[in-house]
Amino acid sequence: MEKDFTVQMKRDQELIERALSEVFRDGERYADLQEAMEYSLLAGGKRIRPVLTLETCRLCGGEPAQALPFACAVEMIHTYSLIHDDLPAMDDDQLRRGRPTNHVVYGEATAILAGDGLLTAAFEELTRAELPADRVVEAVACLSRCAGPAGMVGGQALDMAGEGRGMTRSELEQLQSLKTGALISAAAQLGCIAAGGSREDRDRVRAYAQALGRAFQVRDDMLDVISSDQELGKPVGSDQANEKSTFVTALGLEGCQRLVDELTGRAVKAIEGFEQPDFHIWLAESLAKRMK
Amino acid sequence: MEKDFTVQMKRDQELIERALSEVFRDGERYADLQEAMEYSLLAGGKRIRPVLTLETCRLCGGEPAQALPFACAVEMIHTYSLIHDDLPAMDDDQLRRGRPTNHVVYGEATAILAGDGLLTAAFEELTRAELPADRVVEAVACLSRCAGPAGMVGGQALDMAGEGRGMTRSELEQLQSLKTGALISAAAQLGCIAAGGSREDRDRVRAYAQALGRAFQVRDDMLDVISSDQELGKPVGSDQANEKSTFVTALGLEGCQRLVDELTGRAVKAIEGFEQPDFHIWLAESLAKRMK
Repeated sequence: MEKDFTVQMKRDQELIERALSEVFRDGERYADLQEAMEYSLLAGGKRIRPVLTLETCRLCGGEPAQALPFACAVEMIHTYSLIHDDLPAMDDDQLRRGRPTNHVVYGEATAILAGDGLLTAAFEELTRAELPADRVVEAVACLSRCAGPAGMVGGQALDMAGEGRGMTRSELEQLQSLKTGALISAAAQLGCIAAGGSREDRDRVRAYAQALGRAFQVRDDMLDVISSDQELGKPVGSDQANEKSTFVTALGLEGCQRLVDELTGRAVKAIEGFEQPDFHIWLAESLAKRMK
Repeated sequence: MEKDFTVQMKRDQELIERALSEVFRDGERYADLQEAMEYSLLAGGKRIRPVLTLETCRLCGGEPAQALPFACAVEMIHTYSLIHDDLPAMDDDQLRRGRPTNHVVYGEATAILAGDGLLTAAFEELTRAELPADRVVEAVACLSRCAGPAGMVGGQALDMAGEGRGMTRSELEQLQSLKTGALISAAAQLGCIAAGGSREDRDRVRAYAQALGRAFQVRDDMLDVISSDQELGKPVGSDQANEKSTFVTALGLEGCQRLVDELTGRAVKAIEGFEQPDFHIWLAESLAKRMK
């Protein structure tokens, strides 16, 4: 059973990779802007967000291919946010997925512009969907709200403001629900919008994605510690020493696993009323157990 | 006659100022993000682009107020581009309109995020227009294309790549048509889209805006030299010494004025077939003579 979903996921990922590689195909090449955008956009990764868009379109009775431009747009937004987060003025990261970050390769100015370009082009991508205009407008409203000052960008602002000081658990929850949760929620909602899902479908899908996104983030914090311990030889708790607030510093590893399991249960419950929720259940459970 | 248009322009500007001040009114306040966005968005200025949106809506038979969210979106994009252009990694400017630039006041990280937030929220603003969905989709497609990698962001990439070396006149034309022309063109087109103008209306409006945008930029380069000479005591030609390519270094002041007049004539010609083109004619002629 599990194998089928792995195959389904791989098929989605291939569809997404091909579509992403074509986003800037016909574009003019101004200086190294396009190269810089594609360097980060086509750097691989699990493509969880766009897969969620395609499969949520299917969940709500649509044809996944209809939602492909929406899926690409979400991944473009995700990619721009990584480029800007890595900048020297932000997290100042040199490596991402084992490759030099965008600004290390292309310089800061081009990296800022590559992010701006991907963000802007994401909205053009939404308009390429062959769907009724009211669904496209709904998608623009949803994605801009979730990715903007009231969502992802707001979360990043909180993150920057909170650096170097301890955060309470509820501050951390708010920060993460904005910084990562909002875009995961948008990814799922866009699938539902593409399918023409009902208001009630949309609410269920949003509840699923919110719980999934929280579980994803808690598991992320756990993996930071687990993989540090096993692979990097960094002692458990070094985040604490660095005064970086994470769910592990707030709850401990066991408390985190309990929270992940509880959130995964909540995600599953939110969508089990759909006719074929099996992929979404499998996805939530795999993410809860993932080791990387 | 001229006085009437000044009054009309002031009325538009007031409408725009009020609408801009309400964009983030109901928003949550995450750290100093909203303050930073409003610091730049509400810093005044002539609001040429959004005025062009409102008046082009009227030109094409619509009610200007219908186009107000489109007008705000254009100004939000313009504002974000100024914030990012001023960053240390870009032009590294400390002052804009006599006030410290965004990153000087709020720091680089927040300035980057304020730009990202304004850019993203601009697309949400488009969806607030009370217009048929197909017009909103058309507006999203037009604005994202003109502001993105194939437009404004592409122009900024060319600008960064060209810094410190001389550019030919045709390189300079391409750079400016992307960096400033594309958004001015979007501003006018969005007015036409809001009004439900025909394909032919849209073409005429675009031709007007393209000529206007070029004239605007050439006049800008002239004012740099003229006001340097008179107000700053900087000798004419200092841009040349700094190897910064401008239309003045390429054509000289007299050549520039001839070009501005020619372009203004072309702009007027493009829209004189409309029933009431007088405001647009006045605007083009005022910009061609402007002293600041």
